[in-house]
Amino acid sequence: MAANRIELPKRKLMGPGPLEIHPRVYQALTSPVIGYLDPDYLKILDQVGEKLRMVFQTRNRATNAMPGTGTSGMEACVANLIEPGDKVLVCVHGYFGDRLRQMVERQDAQMSVIEGEWGKPIDPGEIESAFKSEAYKVLAIVHAETSTGVLQPMDEVVRLTREYGVMLLLDTVTSLGGVEVKMDEWGVDAAYSCSQKCIGCPPGVAPVSFSDRAVEAARSRKQPVRSWYLDITLLEKYWGSERVYHHTSSSTLNYALLEALTLIEEEGLQNRFARHLKNHRALVAGVEAMGLEMLVSPEHRLPTLNTIRIPQGVDDVKARSYLLETFDLEIGGGLGALKGKVWRVGQMGYSSSAENVLFFLSAINRALSLQGHQTDLASGTQAAMSALDA
Amino acid sequence: MAANRIELPKRKLMGPGPLEIHPRVYQALTSPVIGYLDPDYLKILDQVGEKLRMVFQTRNRATNAMPGTGTSGMEACVANLIEPGDKVLVCVHGYFGDRLRQMVERQDAQMSVIEGEWGKPIDPGEIESAFKSEAYKVLAIVHAETSTGVLQPMDEVVRLTREYGVMLLLDTVTSLGGVEVKMDEWGVDAAYSCSQKCIGCPPGVAPVSFSDRAVEAARSRKQPVRSWYLDITLLEKYWGSERVYHHTSSSTLNYALLEALTLIEEEGLQNRFARHLKNHRALVAGVEAMGLEMLVSPEHRLPTLNTIRIPQGVDDVKARSYLLETFDLEIGGGLGALKGKVWRVGQMGYSSSAENVLFFLSAINRALSLQGHQTDLASGTQAAMSALDA
Repeated sequence: MAANRIELPKRKLMGPGPLEIHPRVYQALTSPVIGYLDPDYLKILDQVGEKLRMVFQTRNRATNAMPGTGTSGMEACVANLIEPGDKVLVCVHGYFGDRLRQMVERQDAQMSVIEGEWGKPIDPGEIESAFKSEAYKVLAIVHAETSTGVLQPMDEVVRLTREYGVMLLLDTVTSLGGVEVKMDEWGVDAAYSCSQKCIGCPPGVAPVSFSDRAVEAARSRKQPVRSWYLDITLLEKYWGSERVYHHTSSSTLNYALLEALTLIEEEGLQNRFARHLKNHRALVAGVEAMGLEMLVSPEHRLPTLNTIRIPQGVDDVKARSYLLETFDLEIGGGLGALKGKVWRVGQMGYSSSAENVLFFLSAINRALSLQGHQTDLASGTQAAMSALDA
Repeated sequence: MAANRIELPKRKLMGPGPLEIHPRVYQALTSPVIGYLDPDYLKILDQVGEKLRMVFQTRNRATNAMPGTGTSGMEACVANLIEPGDKVLVCVHGYFGDRLRQMVERQDAQMSVIEGEWGKPIDPGEIESAFKSEAYKVLAIVHAETSTGVLQPMDEVVRLTREYGVMLLLDTVTSLGGVEVKMDEWGVDAAYSCSQKCIGCPPGVAPVSFSDRAVEAARSRKQPVRSWYLDITLLEKYWGSERVYHHTSSSTLNYALLEALTLIEEEGLQNRFARHLKNHRALVAGVEAMGLEMLVSPEHRLPTLNTIRIPQGVDDVKARSYLLETFDLEIGGGLGALKGKVWRVGQMGYSSSAENVLFFLSAINRALSLQGHQTDLASGTQAAMSALDA
């Protein structure tokens, strides 16, 4: 039977996701599949909800994993919170803000858009101006823009949504489990993430959390949620005590998610954030000492995803193919406006490690030198090691 | 690390799904996760598409696995084919037809419904009357009703959709891979299934196939598909040669799906259908010889899911709990109108085996006798063995 094993390369994953998976999570995948209403499975679902509350830092009852990828989580938040005609303000400062915009558009909302520069955070002043001029129901914004590597500061955003009584819809795809996401403290009404980034699980399920106010709003809509599959008023009857059948929950992926969340619990959230930050700083120190440039200014850099400017004259695709073929190393290319202009180097979950920092620096040095672009690897390595030793 | 292994009972799964999983499929789950645009992963996706075409008996290009459960497949077919105001005829003769109705409603279609008796197929005469009185765009119907165990005969349905030029949307959740689904021969425009029934994979992905005509219709809609996540015009750009990022495909589940499809290929579709039929006949022979009654008349029985009437005076939940707790045996209860009235016994994929037939007969005999309802196990076993030996 071994002959039928799917033979795949063992990639070193340092792209935008999926990232590397802990052996215990792989092991959990082989736990026996059982029924979606099996009393033992319902305990698993409850534990998933409980541990996701820990990671989202929330007490929201409607917290669990959507049966789909991170994008299904995005659509769930949009489709549940927004009715046709609702006034919605969407912030677009990257590819995923733009995806949010497209989804909100499909709900036939009255949408306004703040277009921010890709590589910078959204200016809260613009949000305030918009709030002053019109009464919005929902603000949709990306906390950690996976396309640009920008971490949106939340203080002002949170102050404004509170002050103006606007519901807050937050994309935490590249932040949850890697940097602080304080759902309750921030008063977030709907947040979504994915399983395969900082959480450290294979892709296929999407952590989501809805505030009681958001669930209540969904219950009292004039028109039903356009997506039956993602309707939180139906899902909470399965996740909650009623246990009404809605979909056949993927036991396999939820076993893995639970194990990944258990690893987070064991490490401790704050330790985990510190690890992500340290390895990120080491990589940046190395990259800059080598003579390469980061896209984002230091105060707005996302510790989980680094965007490095591709030096003039270097062929993006050629360099990435070389890394993949020669070193089994995956890094991400740019999306949308940043295509061909940046590399996206993920340091998330199990992939956020000292060894990966060093491996990446050596590999990118080699890939660049083959295209005639010399970088100073000795200085880069030394700077990274100093940061790791800090 | 073994201590962290999630300890779960090893259930004998004979409910409506998930069913038991072949060891090779479990093994495939642990293949290393790689990126959604990795050239090696794209080969896996292509193979999934190719082997699903074999199972759907189609040449449709837009054939692959939706990133969600079977219900996401249902919603994908509904949301792509139907625009607000479209005239849609939905056949409801069970719980899943009713789910289709709810989804079509949420598309703001002009919907008409044929309500059929639960436990009988839809009368094609009613479809014809409806087609005669109005010009419909889409007919939505369930091929294999998981809630009733009825297999809808397709000949007349297919004749009518052709004759009246109506698009055909077909639920094949409990038929695909277990009984004939002739997508192209029948002229089906959109079909969906799930991974965890006759296909023999864990739940979490949904095989779907769209005819070229369906994709063309989706492309030329007046309004975009309401679900961005399930929009076939975006998905086909990822599944097809353009390879445009849409979602982070679950490599883990697709490895398992590919292995499950490879097992189907190795067994041969016709052999697989014959196995499902033989084990079904054996179970029915046993059940009837024991003195129990089937819900569905012989000519309309689904070979993959048996609905057995619960004898008068027998407590449904008590009996199923006993089977689960004492024998680790899961069978399904009734849904909707059939709640408390039938048991649903699945014989699909790896769970469709002679040993399971015999085990079920003995276990149900015991569960019933504990509630004071005697059945003739000796006759049941003999009848089943004769059928297995036929």
